[in-house]
Amino acid sequence: MNSPALAVRATVLQAPTPWSLEVLSDVVVSVSATGTIEAVDAADSDRARHALATAASTVVLGDDQRLLPGLVDLHVHAPQWPQLGTGLDVSLERWLFQYTFALEARYRDTAFAESVWAAMVPTLLAHGTTTAVYFATTHVEATTALASACLAAGQRAYVGRVAMDHPDHTPPDYRDPDAEQGVAASAASIRAIGALHDPMGLVAPIITPRFIPACSDDLLGGLGDLAAHTGVTVQTHCSESDWEHLEVLRRHGRRDAHSLDHFGLLVAHTVLAHGTHLDDADMDLLTARGAGVAHCPLSNAYFAGAVFPTARALARKVRVGLGSDVAGGSHPGLFTQCAMAVTASRLLGDGVDVTLPADRRGVVGARIDAVTAFHLATAGGAAVLGAPVGLWEPGRAFDAIAVDLAREGSALRRWD
Amino acid sequence: MNSPALAVRATVLQAPTPWSLEVLSDVVVSVSATGTIEAVDAADSDRARHALATAASTVVLGDDQRLLPGLVDLHVHAPQWPQLGTGLDVSLERWLFQYTFALEARYRDTAFAESVWAAMVPTLLAHGTTTAVYFATTHVEATTALASACLAAGQRAYVGRVAMDHPDHTPPDYRDPDAEQGVAASAASIRAIGALHDPMGLVAPIITPRFIPACSDDLLGGLGDLAAHTGVTVQTHCSESDWEHLEVLRRHGRRDAHSLDHFGLLVAHTVLAHGTHLDDADMDLLTARGAGVAHCPLSNAYFAGAVFPTARALARKVRVGLGSDVAGGSHPGLFTQCAMAVTASRLLGDGVDVTLPADRRGVVGARIDAVTAFHLATAGGAAVLGAPVGLWEPGRAFDAIAVDLAREGSALRRWD
Repeated sequence: MNSPALAVRATVLQAPTPWSLEVLSDVVVSVSATGTIEAVDAADSDRARHALATAASTVVLGDDQRLLPGLVDLHVHAPQWPQLGTGLDVSLERWLFQYTFALEARYRDTAFAESVWAAMVPTLLAHGTTTAVYFATTHVEATTALASACLAAGQRAYVGRVAMDHPDHTPPDYRDPDAEQGVAASAASIRAIGALHDPMGLVAPIITPRFIPACSDDLLGGLGDLAAHTGVTVQTHCSESDWEHLEVLRRHGRRDAHSLDHFGLLVAHTVLAHGTHLDDADMDLLTARGAGVAHCPLSNAYFAGAVFPTARALARKVRVGLGSDVAGGSHPGLFTQCAMAVTASRLLGDGVDVTLPADRRGVVGARIDAVTAFHLATAGGAAVLGAPVGLWEPGRAFDAIAVDLAREGSALRRWD
Repeated sequence: MNSPALAVRATVLQAPTPWSLEVLSDVVVSVSATGTIEAVDAADSDRARHALATAASTVVLGDDQRLLPGLVDLHVHAPQWPQLGTGLDVSLERWLFQYTFALEARYRDTAFAESVWAAMVPTLLAHGTTTAVYFATTHVEATTALASACLAAGQRAYVGRVAMDHPDHTPPDYRDPDAEQGVAASAASIRAIGALHDPMGLVAPIITPRFIPACSDDLLGGLGDLAAHTGVTVQTHCSESDWEHLEVLRRHGRRDAHSLDHFGLLVAHTVLAHGTHLDDADMDLLTARGAGVAHCPLSNAYFAGAVFPTARALARKVRVGLGSDVAGGSHPGLFTQCAMAVTASRLLGDGVDVTLPADRRGVVGARIDAVTAFHLATAGGAAVLGAPVGLWEPGRAFDAIAVDLAREGSALRRWD
């Protein structure tokens, strides 16, 4: 038996499937010097006692504390942090031009970018987000600075330089000049993030076409080639709103997921934000490719015009995790999204318009519960990414948050 | 110019109407020894300077702090506090029997009740709820103990002993034995709360038939008479779910609001929880009587089968405030309900089922925004109750919460 670098004694929770919550009471988690879980043993076992006795450091949680896998936020627009909670009064396509692009353009000033990242990353960590998938901006330097901020704070992150060049759907002062330069900048961003000192392997680049309407076909194709050549995975928005869905259909004569696939952008662990308007055939394509959905339930209430059918996607074996969609969503962190995912599914199931008869108001079988939401926020998000987090399993990273059931002013309590 | 007992210098916010947010920058609020606002003056005025110089005590808020009216939670089931966030998997009528009544029956043990109240009241205060309208249990002693707990913690409260006697919809071990004893117990509760030492006038009794299905006609009529004789106002549930709505229609041949009116229970400042299924004629009756709705958007997503049409109710001049509906709602405090009220209104407006065409998915004109939600949580709730809170106005109580924009780990920030 080796001596672990860290031994943690606690009651831990996990949701290995959308339908199963496991409570492992009073176990010892042994962790290697590189942060990998080596063993999870009952505290009264010989191995656990040995680990506690010989570990370089030990942590013992209190009776009122629980250890959870860290939360995986699959969709964060980092530069929109200063507009969190504001300007949600217009449709997506107007919101981008009216509020968002002007703010994002300011990140050409890397010092401004650094000031926002320094405020945002620790706040997301404080909300339990130990893994985040970020849309940065079109600026390579601001994007690299975001990866550095994550490293400095100890947050696992996928950091994507935003690629977009379409003159109809992006402003002249905030876009890639053309497809070629866009692909080159994305390649440069991959190299810059890869060159950061990152002994724990916390940060990774991710290829990030904003969404099909904002990108020329040449840019989409070039980024697909870049993904194929580098093995770097992809994130983008997919079938978010009626407008976006119809715009892609009009331009390509294909539905969004199929168009992304055509350009080589639907690969294993591609993260598709929203997917609200995916139909069954789209979902089956995602499942075949190993791509997943970042379900952003709060944002969807503002911009998607409908509720993502989570239960239907899970039944079709689509990988699904959760996203805050800062700042299309107005709250940081995933506990709010967990609650909202359940609530939205109830409203989808029951319907919303009381003037309709009850049996014609909602969608049968749409409900998900808190266990499913917790799975999405942890192991589900990890599966979308193929990231070694989300479960208490040897070989995965020790990536955790502690919840305190006795904190003053909190409504989280244990009752008999 | 008198010397106030307290002078507070701060930037204060208020929403006097559902459509107006006022920011009063750098004012001084002068408060009397009994807690009444005497004046609100610009900080650079002579009156403000005099107040600050002569007040018995002064508070000066920092640049990063804002003062808001305290939040008014119009609907809290106090005894359900230990089940907060659990057991929301069944319909209302099953939930009551499967989870809730057995818990509420335990409050015959007043010591148990006191232990819950001592945990709950400070937690609600910590969430900003300075005024709460409580359903207690059928037990007079536990109900009086709740009023005492509010006094001890300094929370304004309307505390109602729950009256219910209908053998079909309440369990044998948790109901009033008959209508006469039910009315007598409610009268005794009014006297007991009235006898508490309460120099600031913080707590008041409120007559509380649970809802029509749980009450015999004799009990409803007796409580209506009690309201008329004592001048004590009323709270109950109204038109919450399809089941409840249809049960009243079946039994009385009238819609819920009209039945409550028939029994003398729809009076000025009656608080009707939910009202999800109110139609236009019901709403007009509420407006005529001066009764109001406790809109509980999160709870409604679990139990109501639809979204309360807030915009329609406001257009018909119904008084509307917000309720957490602990524990049919799974979150304490009203900021969550403010967000959910906006979100639910967006889902009502846009619809939820993506398989329907966009123009047939939602309800036109249903959206409300954050200003409306903030109004509902403050001045709107105060108007439902006729309580002197919710606005920075001479003659109202100084009843406030401070929000800190610089607190570590908070996403609430001021950006240029």
